[in-house]
Amino acid sequence: MAQVQRMSRLMVKTLRDDPADAETLNHKLLVRAGYVRRTAAGIWTWLPLGKKVYENVARVVREEMDAIGGQEVLLPALLPKEPYEASGRYEEYGDLLFRLKDRKGSDYLLGPTHEEIFTQVVKDQCASYKDLPVILYQIQTKYRDEARPRAGVLRGREFQMKDSYSFDTTDEGLAESYALHRAAYQRIFERLGLDYRIVSAISGAMGGSASEEFLAPAAAGEDTFVDCPACDYAANTEAVTFALKPVEGAEHPAAQELDTPDTPTIETLAEHLGVPASATLKNLLVKVDGEIVAVGVPGDREVDLGKLAEHLAPAEVELVTAEDFADRPDLVRGYVGPQGLKVRYLADPRVAPGTAWITGANKPDTHAKDVVCGRDFEVDQYLDVVVVEEGDPCPACGAGLKIGRAIEIGHIFQLGRKYADTFQLDVLGQNGKPVRVTMGSYGIGVSRAVAALVEQSADDKGLCWPKEVAPADVHVVAAGKAVQTELALDVAEKLNAAGVRVLVDDRAGVSPGVKFTDAELIGIPQILVAGRRSAEGVLELKDRRTGEREELTVAEAIARLSA
Amino acid sequence: MAQVQRMSRLMVKTLRDDPADAETLNHKLLVRAGYVRRTAAGIWTWLPLGKKVYENVARVVREEMDAIGGQEVLLPALLPKEPYEASGRYEEYGDLLFRLKDRKGSDYLLGPTHEEIFTQVVKDQCASYKDLPVILYQIQTKYRDEARPRAGVLRGREFQMKDSYSFDTTDEGLAESYALHRAAYQRIFERLGLDYRIVSAISGAMGGSASEEFLAPAAAGEDTFVDCPACDYAANTEAVTFALKPVEGAEHPAAQELDTPDTPTIETLAEHLGVPASATLKNLLVKVDGEIVAVGVPGDREVDLGKLAEHLAPAEVELVTAEDFADRPDLVRGYVGPQGLKVRYLADPRVAPGTAWITGANKPDTHAKDVVCGRDFEVDQYLDVVVVEEGDPCPACGAGLKIGRAIEIGHIFQLGRKYADTFQLDVLGQNGKPVRVTMGSYGIGVSRAVAALVEQSADDKGLCWPKEVAPADVHVVAAGKAVQTELALDVAEKLNAAGVRVLVDDRAGVSPGVKFTDAELIGIPQILVAGRRSAEGVLELKDRRTGEREELTVAEAIARLSA
Repeated sequence: MAQVQRMSRLMVKTLRDDPADAETLNHKLLVRAGYVRRTAAGIWTWLPLGKKVYENVARVVREEMDAIGGQEVLLPALLPKEPYEASGRYEEYGDLLFRLKDRKGSDYLLGPTHEEIFTQVVKDQCASYKDLPVILYQIQTKYRDEARPRAGVLRGREFQMKDSYSFDTTDEGLAESYALHRAAYQRIFERLGLDYRIVSAISGAMGGSASEEFLAPAAAGEDTFVDCPACDYAANTEAVTFALKPVEGAEHPAAQELDTPDTPTIETLAEHLGVPASATLKNLLVKVDGEIVAVGVPGDREVDLGKLAEHLAPAEVELVTAEDFADRPDLVRGYVGPQGLKVRYLADPRVAPGTAWITGANKPDTHAKDVVCGRDFEVDQYLDVVVVEEGDPCPACGAGLKIGRAIEIGHIFQLGRKYADTFQLDVLGQNGKPVRVTMGSYGIGVSRAVAALVEQSADDKGLCWPKEVAPADVHVVAAGKAVQTELALDVAEKLNAAGVRVLVDDRAGVSPGVKFTDAELIGIPQILVAGRRSAEGVLELKDRRTGEREELTVAEAIARLSA
Repeated sequence: MAQVQRMSRLMVKTLRDDPADAETLNHKLLVRAGYVRRTAAGIWTWLPLGKKVYENVARVVREEMDAIGGQEVLLPALLPKEPYEASGRYEEYGDLLFRLKDRKGSDYLLGPTHEEIFTQVVKDQCASYKDLPVILYQIQTKYRDEARPRAGVLRGREFQMKDSYSFDTTDEGLAESYALHRAAYQRIFERLGLDYRIVSAISGAMGGSASEEFLAPAAAGEDTFVDCPACDYAANTEAVTFALKPVEGAEHPAAQELDTPDTPTIETLAEHLGVPASATLKNLLVKVDGEIVAVGVPGDREVDLGKLAEHLAPAEVELVTAEDFADRPDLVRGYVGPQGLKVRYLADPRVAPGTAWITGANKPDTHAKDVVCGRDFEVDQYLDVVVVEEGDPCPACGAGLKIGRAIEIGHIFQLGRKYADTFQLDVLGQNGKPVRVTMGSYGIGVSRAVAALVEQSADDKGLCWPKEVAPADVHVVAAGKAVQTELALDVAEKLNAAGVRVLVDDRAGVSPGVKFTDAELIGIPQILVAGRRSAEGVLELKDRRTGEREELTVAEAIARLSA
């Protein structure tokens, strides 16, 4: 049986003041309440109370991973370089990777994520389609040498993660493994008491196809995302799309040139003409694998170059230079327009067929108006490349989107065959021929989930844990007199015997006020005080979140708390 | 509720042959039975079955540490250099330490053990004698860049360890914390089913006072130890002492010189004189912090220079060189004797007062006989410096000692104030003045304990786990026919519902012979076969260790196995 935890023996030192360098709630409160301690930049020690919360989160993750048939393994964190060289990530990770040599001079790295090694494990252990599908997971320490480790345990350089990997022989199988994870993640975050959104994501450096992120809205978050107030649409800002809606029936006069001296920017042009920037068409020139291409967006919108690069990957995207303009006298810097342009023309869907624009006339100091898409110029390819703004229409229902900050607490990917191709991971198929395996990769930041919980649940008094992750179910406070301490210890033992996890503040020489403040800071969901009416055997139960209080006898308290 | 584990879905590939590079049982069998996989030299992956065993060991350790009031924490593995520089271990560890730099060029190491960081944690968290004693522990991944990683998970470069640290204000408190650990370790190793001895140890590089090792006798072990067949004495070979017993009443003639040309070694001398080597006295010259010192031992014994260095630490011990002899014409190489010698004389207790020896006469080609200790020379200091040999007398009872090989599975140390001094770890004492804290450090190799279990418990058929650590309680084998598989799955579900941990071999297209061989290799304690009499609902229960078989109905099997 578990033991009653006694504050008099527990290593927990609470602080009245925030650490000087703390910017986020989780950093301030987890340190002040004695849950964690900084060992180095982005490198943390989990103290006894923090370890309990961490283990509770890990337990929930483990239970739900087991429930979808996940098999737990434990891979090393110290990894040989070769598999990561084979996948190209040894270079791609750049400075994010901790690299080291052993005594013989061989190269190693500290694992940031383990796709390569899991692929090798399965190649070694699974030979036939009969051995698949398989879902493997681990809860393990990972390393990323972040340039700016910050925000407490939210963004560490050493951190704990649950990473899992699915291996299937068919695309349908992968979709099924992905769906199992998606449902498991929903159960996990619900059990943890996290408010979250599932958003579609561009998979980025992982190189996959379908991919979704689980975001926990929080001011301290490093991700921005859009959320529709009217429907259940939510997305990573990079993944928002804008529907292409051709404008039909509108009549526009013929395009006409305008004398616009010294107006090479949208601002100078709009001011000169006295029109809103949104009436103008901005044409950005870029080089795609060396070929000059123009990208058209409304004049009031910004191009997200990262998003453009993602769309055009694996092609390389660069901005054009003065030399490029010098080579191409047909491209007039500051006065480019799509009409008659001799380069490929990409555009935002807002530049829809039938829309009319003020844009460059491809002559110095000259623009043109009533330049109509589909009449005066054609778009070769539509791409969502503008930076999403608050109020942009929801792709699902058209309502104005909200933009918020969030913490990425989970990520699920359909990786496909990228790593299987690298390591030639085949199994014998039903027809006796080799089948290339297809993979998914799925992550939950376990230490980060603790941080997200704090960011979402703490209040001005301190931490305020959901029951499932709290380091105890009830915090019994002995106000100080002998009769109070006696009652507190008695009820603590009885609660413990009834299976309730108890922390009891039995410290001598600490004032009741300090004990109450500490109890609120530590944030166990129920606070049971042996105070004024202890001699009668009456305690006060306080709900940490709502502050509601109630007087109960010992028997009533046990019945209530063990229910 | 836990689920039935099905071999058809479990990632486990058994091998008929030992891995080519495997030398030890644990390496051979853990790989062949699909428990672990080598990722790099001394760096292992725990596969699903191995992870279960590892977790079972960790659970036992955790329960017993909690029972002595240990508080679990989790420290980082990636550590800043500075605390280890302060203690001197950044240099002392030499090549054993994995060192690396972060993106800013700061120096880090991968923690081999955490005395420094725990000291800092307690300095930060504990301010008063009221906050002590405290026992902190973690089960964590450690790193040591072994020159020759070998022997499977027995001696890895990345490995899992339980390390704990006690903090007390008094020597009595430390003795109590040490005793608590000693008792907890006994319970842990008993529950794990390990055969072990507790031996006194020289604390070595850790720099402490009292220290004991827990050794698991096994041929694959890297430690040698002595074990008394007649009493319960056991010790690290380096810690064996020999009682000094002066010989009284024996009369010896006066010492007499012997002409012994060309006999500078014990072998040549003994042969020349026709006496046993044990009749001669060997005098080794060494420099202790630059001072020449002689060490006398019986001619048939070897001096253990490591043991000598331990005894004389922190003084530096070196062998004398030809130059040293050149500087000291009174020291005649090959013919040194203690009588009239002008250097300090240390000796093994076998060179007791009253014993007579043949030894060098401090003249070229000359020895002396009947040189009596206490009459012709004096011993300045007695030290146990000879290599222990089989048959040496037990220090406790005098019986002839046995020498065996063993695996060090645990180590407990009274460190004292070494690290507290380094980091000035004081707390406020009862009298209001600072008290320097005294520490203990205690380790159990968790991954190593798994290896030790294999080395001790495996047989020629494969692994053979004690119940508490086995990956399941019972291995149900469906011989192959539909009725057999049906019965096997039915009984597996019923056993699972009764709280029995079940692995069921439900693989299709695998012969009964292969399944039986795999079951023996995998080593779950009970094997329940749905075979020949499945149609009648009768199964065969086989004890993996004894091979005893018995026929049981489903109800009987459930009653037996859930008992």
